[in-house]
Amino acid sequence: MNVLLIGANGQIGQHLVDLFANKSEHTVRTMVRKEEQAAALKEKGVEAVVADLEGSVDKIAEAAQGCDAVIFTAGSGGKTGPDKTLLVDLDGAVKSFEAAEQAGIKRYVMVSAFQAGNRENWNEKLRPYYVAKHYADRMLEESSLNYTIVRPGGLLNEEGTGKVAAAVSGLERGSIPRVDVARTVYETLTEEKTYKKTFDLISGDTEIEAALKSL
Amino acid sequence: MNVLLIGANGQIGQHLVDLFANKSEHTVRTMVRKEEQAAALKEKGVEAVVADLEGSVDKIAEAAQGCDAVIFTAGSGGKTGPDKTLLVDLDGAVKSFEAAEQAGIKRYVMVSAFQAGNRENWNEKLRPYYVAKHYADRMLEESSLNYTIVRPGGLLNEEGTGKVAAAVSGLERGSIPRVDVARTVYETLTEEKTYKKTFDLISGDTEIEAALKSL
Repeated sequence: MNVLLIGANGQIGQHLVDLFANKSEHTVRTMVRKEEQAAALKEKGVEAVVADLEGSVDKIAEAAQGCDAVIFTAGSGGKTGPDKTLLVDLDGAVKSFEAAEQAGIKRYVMVSAFQAGNRENWNEKLRPYYVAKHYADRMLEESSLNYTIVRPGGLLNEEGTGKVAAAVSGLERGSIPRVDVARTVYETLTEEKTYKKTFDLISGDTEIEAALKSL
Repeated sequence: MNVLLIGANGQIGQHLVDLFANKSEHTVRTMVRKEEQAAALKEKGVEAVVADLEGSVDKIAEAAQGCDAVIFTAGSGGKTGPDKTLLVDLDGAVKSFEAAEQAGIKRYVMVSAFQAGNRENWNEKLRPYYVAKHYADRMLEESSLNYTIVRPGGLLNEEGTGKVAAAVSGLERGSIPRVDVARTVYETLTEEKTYKKTFDLISGDTEIEAALKSL
C-alpha cells in the first residue's frame, strides 16, 4: 500500500515514519504543514508533501492523490487553544475524510482517544478535546470510507512492549507507549478484522497481531 | 404544540418567549441553566425547567418530557472561549437532539448561522464557532428528527419588518433583526414546507409565511 501519513511530525507520527522506513511492505508519503518540515523529512529520504488541515479539501485531496490509505495522527496539541481543537482535530480531520473520498481512497485509519465515544468517560480537563475527537469519529463512522478508529489510553514515551489489550468496549482505563500505538496502527492497515471498527487500546498481554485478529 | 425552548434567555430566545406569550396556538416550556433564570421566567408566568446543555442527555430528555417540538436558540455566546463553543454549541446541541429522540419528540427547529454548511463562506474571525455550528447541523440532518435548520445572517437589534428572504442556497450575505428571526422560527414550527430543510435567512421583501411556503 501507498499510505498518506497525516501528522508525521507528531510523536506517534515519528514512530510511524520509522516503521515505514524499516519495513518494505508499504510505502509512505508524509503530509506536513510547513515547507521546512517537508525538507527535513526529505533529507531523511522520506516522501513529503505540504498541505494544511486548515486549508481546502481540494489541496488535501491533491496531497493524497495516488495513495491507497490514509493514517491520521495529527492533532492541534496541548500548546494551542480550543479554537485550534475545532479547526484541526475536528474540521481538519473531517476535511481529510472528504479529501480521501475525493481522491478515491477507501482505507482510513484514525488515531483517536480512549473512550471518545462515551461522554461519561471523558477526562474532565480534556473535555473540549474529547468533543472534537468524538464528532470527528462519528463523521468517519458515517462516511463511505473503510475506516479503523484506534483509541489509545494515556500515551507514554516509554519503550514499547509489543503487547496490548484491544477491545471495542469493556477495557479499563490504562496507558500505552506511543511506539506501541504506532505499531498497532501500522498493523491495522491490512488487518481485515479491524475494518469498519472502532476500538480502545492499552498495554496488555497479547501480541499486537493477535490482539487485532481477536477484534 | 407544546414546545421546549432551549436558550430562552438569549436575545432571540426572549423574542420567542414574547411570541409564545402573545399567541395561543402553542404553549412553551423554557429550559434554562440556572435556578434564578427559571424563577425570573416563572414570575412572568412562563413555564421553566432547569437543565444544563453541559449535563447529561437524560436530564435534558427529562426536561423535554411531554413536549411535541424543540426550538434550540442557545449559544455559548461571545464572552466565553472556544472550549464552551465545543461543549455547548456542538456537544450541547447534539445532546439535545439525542434527548428529543429519547423523549419521543419528532419536531426540532435549530437556529444556526448563515452559510454554516459551506466552509468557504465562513467569517474568518468566527471560524471556530462556524465549525461547531456546521457539525451540529450535520448531526441534526443525519438524525431521525423532523428538523428545520434556520441560518440567519448578521443579527441586528433593530425593529422587525416581518419581511424576509429565505432560501436553501444562493442568498447574498445580509442581516436581519433578531425579532424577525424569532418570528420565522415560530412560523416554521408547523410549516410543512420547512420540514427536513436547511435554509439561509436575511431581511427581504417577502412576508415570513410566504417566504417559508416558497422553500
